[in-house]
Amino acid sequence: MQCSVRHLARRGVSTLKFGNSAQESDVRFFQRVLGAANVITSPQELKRYNTDWLGQYVGRSPVVLCPRTTAEVVEVMRHCNLRHLPVVPQGGNTGLAGGSVPVQDEVVLSLTRMSDVLSIDPDACVATVQAGVTLQQLDEALAPHALCVPLDLGVKATCQLGGNVSTNAGGLRVVRYGSLHGSVLGLEVVLADGTILDLNNAMRKDNTGLDLKQLFIGAEGTLGVITALSIATPPRPSSVNVAFLGVKSFDAVLATLRRARSMLGEILSAVEFEDSTCMRLVLQHLEGTQHPLAHARDCPMYMVIETASSGPHRERLDAFVRESAAAGDVLDATVASDATDMDRLWRLRYGVSQALVKAGHVFKYDVSVPQKQMYNIVDEMRSRLAADEAKGGMQHTVVGYGHVGDGNLHVNVLYDRNATSEQMARTQAALEPWLFECIRDMKGSVSAEHGIGQHKQHALAYSKSCDALRVMRSIKHLLDPSGLLNPHKMLDE
Amino acid sequence: MQCSVRHLARRGVSTLKFGNSAQESDVRFFQRVLGAANVITSPQELKRYNTDWLGQYVGRSPVVLCPRTTAEVVEVMRHCNLRHLPVVPQGGNTGLAGGSVPVQDEVVLSLTRMSDVLSIDPDACVATVQAGVTLQQLDEALAPHALCVPLDLGVKATCQLGGNVSTNAGGLRVVRYGSLHGSVLGLEVVLADGTILDLNNAMRKDNTGLDLKQLFIGAEGTLGVITALSIATPPRPSSVNVAFLGVKSFDAVLATLRRARSMLGEILSAVEFEDSTCMRLVLQHLEGTQHPLAHARDCPMYMVIETASSGPHRERLDAFVRESAAAGDVLDATVASDATDMDRLWRLRYGVSQALVKAGHVFKYDVSVPQKQMYNIVDEMRSRLAADEAKGGMQHTVVGYGHVGDGNLHVNVLYDRNATSEQMARTQAALEPWLFECIRDMKGSVSAEHGIGQHKQHALAYSKSCDALRVMRSIKHLLDPSGLLNPHKMLDE
Repeated sequence: MQCSVRHLARRGVSTLKFGNSAQESDVRFFQRVLGAANVITSPQELKRYNTDWLGQYVGRSPVVLCPRTTAEVVEVMRHCNLRHLPVVPQGGNTGLAGGSVPVQDEVVLSLTRMSDVLSIDPDACVATVQAGVTLQQLDEALAPHALCVPLDLGVKATCQLGGNVSTNAGGLRVVRYGSLHGSVLGLEVVLADGTILDLNNAMRKDNTGLDLKQLFIGAEGTLGVITALSIATPPRPSSVNVAFLGVKSFDAVLATLRRARSMLGEILSAVEFEDSTCMRLVLQHLEGTQHPLAHARDCPMYMVIETASSGPHRERLDAFVRESAAAGDVLDATVASDATDMDRLWRLRYGVSQALVKAGHVFKYDVSVPQKQMYNIVDEMRSRLAADEAKGGMQHTVVGYGHVGDGNLHVNVLYDRNATSEQMARTQAALEPWLFECIRDMKGSVSAEHGIGQHKQHALAYSKSCDALRVMRSIKHLLDPSGLLNPHKMLDE
Repeated sequence: MQCSVRHLARRGVSTLKFGNSAQESDVRFFQRVLGAANVITSPQELKRYNTDWLGQYVGRSPVVLCPRTTAEVVEVMRHCNLRHLPVVPQGGNTGLAGGSVPVQDEVVLSLTRMSDVLSIDPDACVATVQAGVTLQQLDEALAPHALCVPLDLGVKATCQLGGNVSTNAGGLRVVRYGSLHGSVLGLEVVLADGTILDLNNAMRKDNTGLDLKQLFIGAEGTLGVITALSIATPPRPSSVNVAFLGVKSFDAVLATLRRARSMLGEILSAVEFEDSTCMRLVLQHLEGTQHPLAHARDCPMYMVIETASSGPHRERLDAFVRESAAAGDVLDATVASDATDMDRLWRLRYGVSQALVKAGHVFKYDVSVPQKQMYNIVDEMRSRLAADEAKGGMQHTVVGYGHVGDGNLHVNVLYDRNATSEQMARTQAALEPWLFECIRDMKGSVSAEHGIGQHKQHALAYSKSCDALRVMRSIKHLLDPSGLLNPHKMLDE
């Protein structure tokens, strides 16, 4: 996946130095404010803060700051503003677009130590937390109140809520709970000049002026540092079931989705799909996995459907599976209700990304398109690359999977680990801008849930108009006039 | 309810003329663009566009424009911008804060003729409509697809989706579907200078840059004119039940809410409460109403709990009612499953507002506070007004009702229709700013769902900090530098 680093250079992202570099005197200031232990400067320790989750992007920040309180964030930001030091806010550093690591030698502001669950209100079903609380930590704090976080991600043990909100993280539960724009009720944000913007009233309904907090949800740390947040926490389902289905075709996937919506409605909590190539790669590369279906072992498509509710409902899921089989859409199915079995089935879907990494190098695209056209993109991509192969291009395996309930397709291109950069460039040229143009024509999104970061800057204009980008940049300028927050990324010109 | 008009004058809202007034030549221009029939200038016809839903606010616009297309809105806005004519966008004109009528002689831009349902995608469960489509019209268009609008309001036959989004309308279904910030997927907006901002990709997931559309949700027409929108439309429940409960106390209301969340979880679709005074006024003033409970006819509190799902669930609601009675929280209850009975029960809650209007004049407050403290506000308000009465103030009846599931309290003060303006001012002085200070101290909202409009400008600063207001005003200035859109309202200084 080093491809992306090479893209960066090739695409001509500015490598001109921006802002000042932190000096010894800055480090001494930070040590006075935060305590020496909370200012990281050792090259060994710095490495993980400078390197993104996928190892695609490596920055060279000389200093990582670990404040404990909002007041400390304010002092840090004031100093950086005066000294014109660019700052990268960083949560669990689990983003997939390189948004949370420095591009040059920006100061890294890690929220990790701001890890207090501030309050849980079981009447309102609202939790208020510092930004560095991990998804798992909050979920465990909510469990005794029979509440849950309306968000689930594979990296829940390390990703932090501030980062989740900054990324507008999607994941598996959007089909049930919607996006964070609906779930996040309040934010506390520190602006580039150290001003605290208190947008954290924790109420479910509040129509007093513009809803400014929404700007920071998905702003990828470019407008301010989220230091605390309130989030609606729905009742924790007492009953969960998972069905794994072998499906006849992608059309049958859509028919099954429609049936699931109609028969399962409010108890649906995930509707995922993967194609047969994904399944083959998972079974081949992930230890301990096995095909879960007894009869139909080579289906064109597979689906995972999860239901969750406050009362038992297994018979409803069974009835849905029976009806889907009777309609001819589903070729074979298995339903799990105990935790181990559910995990086993989920791993066949969760594991796709990991299996791809084990199998070779990957071009990853994370897009939103109308459901009807989702798999056409995978098929067309296969044709384009087959045509290129016929003319001497390298071999590829194209796979499609994703959150079909949300129209969110992950289409990945697997290729040989030993490919040359010329081969990679040729493949990329076969796919871009063709893919982005397709998505623009469908009024889709070139980044459904991963965001822009360093990775998708060149594609942003395919999903947003010049006028919209102009307004975004004006708002950026309004809130961060010196451009110190997370430079060279989302809205960089 | 004329009190509010008097507030306006008393509070010193500027009556200095702002902008130019439309001239004959402007009217001729509008007639050329829209057709003579779509430019209203007759005083008789103008009246209803100049007067708000509650008859509290009366503007004096000389011209109402009724475009049919976005292109026409663009032409109108360009002209108004060049001519410095202030514009009030208006949907169904059903708002409760005077936001949709002119303050002076602003041009009214009515979206009523922009009433096309543009598309319904049953796979994605998304509808795209012009802004003037009514809530009921969309609901009827969705019914054949077994989908519904994630919003329900008493005025559904006349309120328009563009207006709903501009107001961020709340209502009864927020407890189930969340706010419009989560449900609205895309917007098309025309800015003050006629620029079309196309933020309408209709995808459930889109992380490409700042989510600008969120700014316009709840902006009350001060930032741009919403001309079209896409909204997520959930599966239409096939089974609905309504329980009407007589409840022991407000603490028991909260215990019942917690039990409802835990036992009914995802099938809950409304959790409402009203106190015994509301019930008495409804039975006294609304024809055809009768007490629905056989045994406990004088309960301190009443609740309406609605459940809705994609499968039958009546036994779950019955079990919840039994358990609530066994716990001693619920004194008596009745459950309805047929439409007529459900309407009959709902009217006892829906009808509160209407009953109050029939009973006298009303000060209306629509606030969000932590559930635990909701009814304390009603009690304290009663004490304050009783103390004032003891010192010679006029008589009052204080009632509390609202969307308890969302922490949204409507606390209303009923008083004699013949009260003098001095008496009204005395009452108001007994309540304000005390109430707003209480709400500020609880980090609540001084306007939960009605918005700011002309009615709550003086209270805005109790829920939003100076810094937040400064940022809001800068964004307003960025998008509407001449301040032509809906002046004298939400963000006016």
